[in-house]
Amino acid sequence: MIYFEDLKENMEMPLGKYSVTKEEILEFATKYDPQPFHLSEESAKKSMFGGLIASGWHTASIAMRLYVDAVLNKSASLGSPGVDELRWKRPVRPGDVLTGKFTIIETKPFRKGIGMVKGRAELRNQDDKIVMTFIGNGMFGTRPAKE
Amino acid sequence: MIYFEDLKENMEMPLGKYSVTKEEILEFATKYDPQPFHLSEESAKKSMFGGLIASGWHTASIAMRLYVDAVLNKSASLGSPGVDELRWKRPVRPGDVLTGKFTIIETKPFRKGIGMVKGRAELRNQDDKIVMTFIGNGMFGTRPAKE
Repeated sequence: MIYFEDLKENMEMPLGKYSVTKEEILEFATKYDPQPFHLSEESAKKSMFGGLIASGWHTASIAMRLYVDAVLNKSASLGSPGVDELRWKRPVRPGDVLTGKFTIIETKPFRKGIGMVKGRAELRNQDDKIVMTFIGNGMFGTRPAKE
Repeated sequence: MIYFEDLKENMEMPLGKYSVTKEEILEFATKYDPQPFHLSEESAKKSMFGGLIASGWHTASIAMRLYVDAVLNKSASLGSPGVDELRWKRPVRPGDVLTGKFTIIETKPFRKGIGMVKGRAELRNQDDKIVMTFIGNGMFGTRPAKE
């Protein structure tokens, strides 16, 4: 179990890989971001993107899934007040394999029993190009005295 | 069709409503944010949230859907480089009805034929309490000369 005290500035956490399928891009876009370049290969070809791309919110959600599996669900995570500087740097396309990394920027006590951790999430594609970054803020419980 | 020139600073755009179901909260969380307080009523009751809440990324995706339906798909939208100051201010729970608003903060020419629009997205719940805000940056095509 990862507690606040275990999270140190400059710590780099690998988040594993995620394969993005065309089916999943279309499913997410249909529900949450039905713009032509996320929904239809044909419309996307005529767009500035030259082909189907994933919704930026889909890409961010994929980063979250990797972060939950690799870190949060093994930790005393208590949720998040928000995210800063979410940047979509390159299109994510069907067949891309994304690799995540989370680097801790700052840790500080927040309230009794809770610490705040600021870190940079990053996703790279199979060509090692960064496709997305954000700065996340997360609350973590401190280690119980009796453990 | 909404072009860059039609988007003015301080313009307020209502984004309509979205009803959040327990089923949808669980479906999104299962795929993208499988933390106990997003996935299970029972675990959520024991958490600091006191009951099941939607993933913050789900809430942001709902805001996007409202923005696409009300604005982007009626506009010359050309995608977005990113979002700032995404804030999850209150939990979103099953049965909540969210209402969106987008307020333009700044508009400026970007490249030939493209303008950049910065605006504040906001979601309120049925009690008129703000649950989420973010600052979005969007690119829009300018009005074609011949139209």
